[in-house]
Amino acid sequence: MSNKIRLGIVGYGNLGKGVELALSQNPDFELEAIFTRRNPENLSAKSKMVHISEIESYREIIDVMILCGGSATDLPQQTPEIAKMFNTVDSFDTHAKIPEYFNVLDKVTKSSGTIGLISVGWDPGLFSLNRLLGEAVLPRGKYYTFWGKGVSQGHSDAIRRVEGVKDGVQYTVPIESAINKVRSGKNVDLSAREKHERICYVVPKEDADLEKIKNEIINMPNYFSDYNTTVNFITEEEMNKNHKGMPHGGFVIRTGVTGNDTKQRMEFSLNLDSNPEFTSSVLLAYARAAYRLSKEGQTGARTVLDIPFSYLSPKTGEELRKELL
Amino acid sequence: MSNKIRLGIVGYGNLGKGVELALSQNPDFELEAIFTRRNPENLSAKSKMVHISEIESYREIIDVMILCGGSATDLPQQTPEIAKMFNTVDSFDTHAKIPEYFNVLDKVTKSSGTIGLISVGWDPGLFSLNRLLGEAVLPRGKYYTFWGKGVSQGHSDAIRRVEGVKDGVQYTVPIESAINKVRSGKNVDLSAREKHERICYVVPKEDADLEKIKNEIINMPNYFSDYNTTVNFITEEEMNKNHKGMPHGGFVIRTGVTGNDTKQRMEFSLNLDSNPEFTSSVLLAYARAAYRLSKEGQTGARTVLDIPFSYLSPKTGEELRKELL
Repeated sequence: MSNKIRLGIVGYGNLGKGVELALSQNPDFELEAIFTRRNPENLSAKSKMVHISEIESYREIIDVMILCGGSATDLPQQTPEIAKMFNTVDSFDTHAKIPEYFNVLDKVTKSSGTIGLISVGWDPGLFSLNRLLGEAVLPRGKYYTFWGKGVSQGHSDAIRRVEGVKDGVQYTVPIESAINKVRSGKNVDLSAREKHERICYVVPKEDADLEKIKNEIINMPNYFSDYNTTVNFITEEEMNKNHKGMPHGGFVIRTGVTGNDTKQRMEFSLNLDSNPEFTSSVLLAYARAAYRLSKEGQTGARTVLDIPFSYLSPKTGEELRKELL
Repeated sequence: MSNKIRLGIVGYGNLGKGVELALSQNPDFELEAIFTRRNPENLSAKSKMVHISEIESYREIIDVMILCGGSATDLPQQTPEIAKMFNTVDSFDTHAKIPEYFNVLDKVTKSSGTIGLISVGWDPGLFSLNRLLGEAVLPRGKYYTFWGKGVSQGHSDAIRRVEGVKDGVQYTVPIESAINKVRSGKNVDLSAREKHERICYVVPKEDADLEKIKNEIINMPNYFSDYNTTVNFITEEEMNKNHKGMPHGGFVIRTGVTGNDTKQRMEFSLNLDSNPEFTSSVLLAYARAAYRLSKEGQTGARTVLDIPFSYLSPKTGEELRKELL
């Protein structure tokens, strides 16, 4: 028997593929199978593809399952089912529904003796950790989260639903002057419009009314009307050449005061050329933690806030103290 | 009986004073006493000052002791003694000696049933956490630590020992172009001289030989000779007006690649107007964690790498998930 952590991946979209790729940098894992709802025979992958209906037969073979489905419908339905049989790690990111999702999973995992580690990624995830650290260390202060520059999938989808649009992508861009205002420690209140702008690249259909497309986008409620939005029309070639990547990133800034109004600032930022590949790498590091917690006999739901960083590393405590402290 | 965490502070220098100040922002603590080697009657403080020889009589009265002595001689001698009676938190920062210090304290605390949380602060401390997170998430990559702009106590002391110097202060300054090189993800190797420069402000004694002072400083081995060093001569008034603060800060930058050489970057930075006040605030947040670990019945030595962030906050897990994830 190998000493490696035996891993399963559920879902083979961008995230699942990212986890598969990240394994080459993490030799303490061994991928046992990737589970899919599609016909596995139709998928070309280096790894072993298995239909999701067979997942139960892997009960004794897999230590941790990384769930790579979407938060809207996949995870709320899949996770509690799979957590009955396996330790799970997922990137559930519907912020408002996290408490409920946690409670459901906590019950399941406690009764089945597994670990369910939820909402792993960068926001929620690493950004949440920094929001918590900021308010714990500087209680008298304020945190600010900026996102981007990066592609928002939801906003890009919204553009593509507009009549006359053949293809479209939306970048969320943090406004530099707002970041600088925050960094100055002025404790400012910023509206949505003051923090981010939205820049759209649109490939129109032939003979489409460009002015109409533009107006429909910039006035779209919830998505664009509360922001300064720019719409750029481009060719399909340009779209495919320059806008098919998935960069993202952002900043969590905590400004606060200590003592007699002494200014202090903490800042965490990410600059990612691929959002899904980075999220996958975070998922894999936390799969290591889920495995260890389970080995210790722990059960129940957890979030990144509950996990010591030492559990994310393949190194021993002794090595970490020597090399990193 | 109060539900507050009953705190003791050992040592009343900059750090101890910082902890005392930070308590006003952390109402779940109650300060029981500050212990000092000096004659407590000679110290003017709002808080109860007690001579260190009486510390044992506080055994049942104090939940956690924050040790604010120096790493060179105070802590290696004090901590193992005090940890026999109390849970302790300290900011031991002699990087090379941390493994040994940890092992000594681990033995003491395991046999006395206490928690000894060591090397808490920002480096070692929050910077160590970010070095670990960086290598766990992006194993194929490199981390860079830059310090400053900030006052280095050791280098300032070295200046003040030079003949003809009345007063002096040294700022460690990270070199902007080096930070930008790192941020570009080029995976560069940087020498000490390329990463930081050293800027000195010196008040000369009357009739001192300025050229001689300058040469002695910039050629001083270990401290200055490996760096580009600038020496500015100033008046005593200017020194007192502009250079008596203790600002500091720095950056931990992790650059790495995922998948097929996709660039990713993580960055954590601090910008502190008072180094000791910030360190004190970190110590107090981790004192909360030490208290909780002890309440759970845990014993032994710990570092920041072993502590989940949720233990740093006075909020419940439910509140944290709702507000910060």
